[in-house]
Amino acid sequence: MIALGDVQQAARRIDGQAHRTPVIRSATLDELAGARVHLKAECLQRAGAFKFRGAYNKLATLPRGRDVIAYSSGNHAQAVALAARLQGRRATILMPADAPVAKLEATRGYGGEVISFERSSDDREAIASALAAERGLELVRPYDDPLVMAGQGTTALELLEQVADLDVVVVPVGGGGLLAGCATVVKALRPGIRIVGVEPEAGNDTALSLAGGARVNVGVPSTICDGLGASEPGTITFEVNRRLVDEIVTVSDEEVVAAMAFLFERIKLVSEPSGAVGVAALMSGRIGPPTGPVGVVVSGGNVGAAQFAELIGAEHAAALPN
Amino acid sequence: MIALGDVQQAARRIDGQAHRTPVIRSATLDELAGARVHLKAECLQRAGAFKFRGAYNKLATLPRGRDVIAYSSGNHAQAVALAARLQGRRATILMPADAPVAKLEATRGYGGEVISFERSSDDREAIASALAAERGLELVRPYDDPLVMAGQGTTALELLEQVADLDVVVVPVGGGGLLAGCATVVKALRPGIRIVGVEPEAGNDTALSLAGGARVNVGVPSTICDGLGASEPGTITFEVNRRLVDEIVTVSDEEVVAAMAFLFERIKLVSEPSGAVGVAALMSGRIGPPTGPVGVVVSGGNVGAAQFAELIGAEHAAALPN
Repeated sequence: MIALGDVQQAARRIDGQAHRTPVIRSATLDELAGARVHLKAECLQRAGAFKFRGAYNKLATLPRGRDVIAYSSGNHAQAVALAARLQGRRATILMPADAPVAKLEATRGYGGEVISFERSSDDREAIASALAAERGLELVRPYDDPLVMAGQGTTALELLEQVADLDVVVVPVGGGGLLAGCATVVKALRPGIRIVGVEPEAGNDTALSLAGGARVNVGVPSTICDGLGASEPGTITFEVNRRLVDEIVTVSDEEVVAAMAFLFERIKLVSEPSGAVGVAALMSGRIGPPTGPVGVVVSGGNVGAAQFAELIGAEHAAALPN
Repeated sequence: MIALGDVQQAARRIDGQAHRTPVIRSATLDELAGARVHLKAECLQRAGAFKFRGAYNKLATLPRGRDVIAYSSGNHAQAVALAARLQGRRATILMPADAPVAKLEATRGYGGEVISFERSSDDREAIASALAAERGLELVRPYDDPLVMAGQGTTALELLEQVADLDVVVVPVGGGGLLAGCATVVKALRPGIRIVGVEPEAGNDTALSLAGGARVNVGVPSTICDGLGASEPGTITFEVNRRLVDEIVTVSDEEVVAAMAFLFERIKLVSEPSGAVGVAALMSGRIGPPTGPVGVVVSGGNVGAAQFAELIGAEHAAALPN
């Protein structure tokens, strides 16, 4: 479990290293949502996603000379690699052999040593733990770690400073680290604010888990939201979120593509699928009628131009008459 | 001709109405360009492009109750429509019958009355002048107007305030209004800064005109840079630019698409083709070796997601082996 003080301490650790990302407004989105909407643009964060906050905070607590290892096919890999480089540590990153070349290259570009594993047959946690023990590395988990959660919570700390009168805060949910960190901040500072998590329909493990009161494993979800593909909530994140989160809603992949296109065309902002679920939930009316302003975390922007073109092209083609 | 004072006056008129757009940095772009690069993100301007600055400035000088007319297939149409609405004026916009539906809708969305004309057979200037006379409207030209040029120049005024030590300023060139306004500011305040205009290869009318010392008409250029499709420089903009501009360089459509993809993937920013020519020139080494920091105006972001997908998809397909 974490407390507000942990997030405030994280904010001091990442100060000057992570970007204080801007909050962006759109009159068109306000009309669509029927509320004043404030987008917290974590797609403009270093390494392209909020993940840098948690990774940097975790690494900043390690003794000098301690190197790190992480497993991730996506934003956590890049975040750990960049945070390690900035702190003069070496980073070993376990990535699936079929990870997108762009993500492999980005991770290497930040100085990370990439080790491949077979997604279908290998147990990445076991490999990571074995390598950590063998090489004396610190394993940096993507969400189920209080220091990582506290780092992610700095997103909400900034948002509450940037916007005075929020009524609802909307946060994407994968393993639940960003949601847990943000909920901790929001409920400590402004308990009246409703906190809503958003999952892809196919990966609704947190919705099911919170509804049933115990962690549910939904297997590997089939969704374009590759950053929200956790099979089940983390053990620590679940304990936080079951206490603090008001509601979980889900969105379809089609709604996510529409939100990505809206962010592109009207806000001129690039969001990856996972980053756009909050806007998708707003645009499709999944967030109940807000009585006041809504803060939405656009959590990441790591989508290739060609991948975006494919997603939008497929949507576009689907919209054409037969 | 315009002077620094005209631009400063424009800055006071648009204050609080136009956005003071951010300047964005990228370590990767610095490496590619071999210089510190500062991107002036006019794609985040109201109505999606710098055009709002000039349109608002022009309209703000008109007497109360005076309505306006403009001809444009693109950003100038939206800019005039929005500026008119904000000032309580009615805007009539002449748009080609084959203009993209999205641009027609955006112009109507800002409250503009759209009148269609046939691009091949009709003379839009003659129609606009006739309508202006008949209905008592003020014709707002897209670039060849000192008040419009002065408004566009506020882009450079802000850039010089935001970045202290620029060595080069790079500006897209269509009719030359943005370039003329920016050159006026730069040469008045920091005559040592080199000012470079960028045109599409197919629409190099300003390059030819400056080289020959007289306005050259190149016909309707075939380029994806639809905002830079002027056939010849304006009469006033040419007089300013021949005196103040150091150099014009050109870029290919392929280089523009690569720059759009870079801005998307690394900066998380949406640029339309015309907006990306400055970054394209930098990335392809067309701007001679800079000795100091470079300011680049990313002039607009009005590209549809489907259009972007097509441009990137074609590029992507072209890059695949046979």
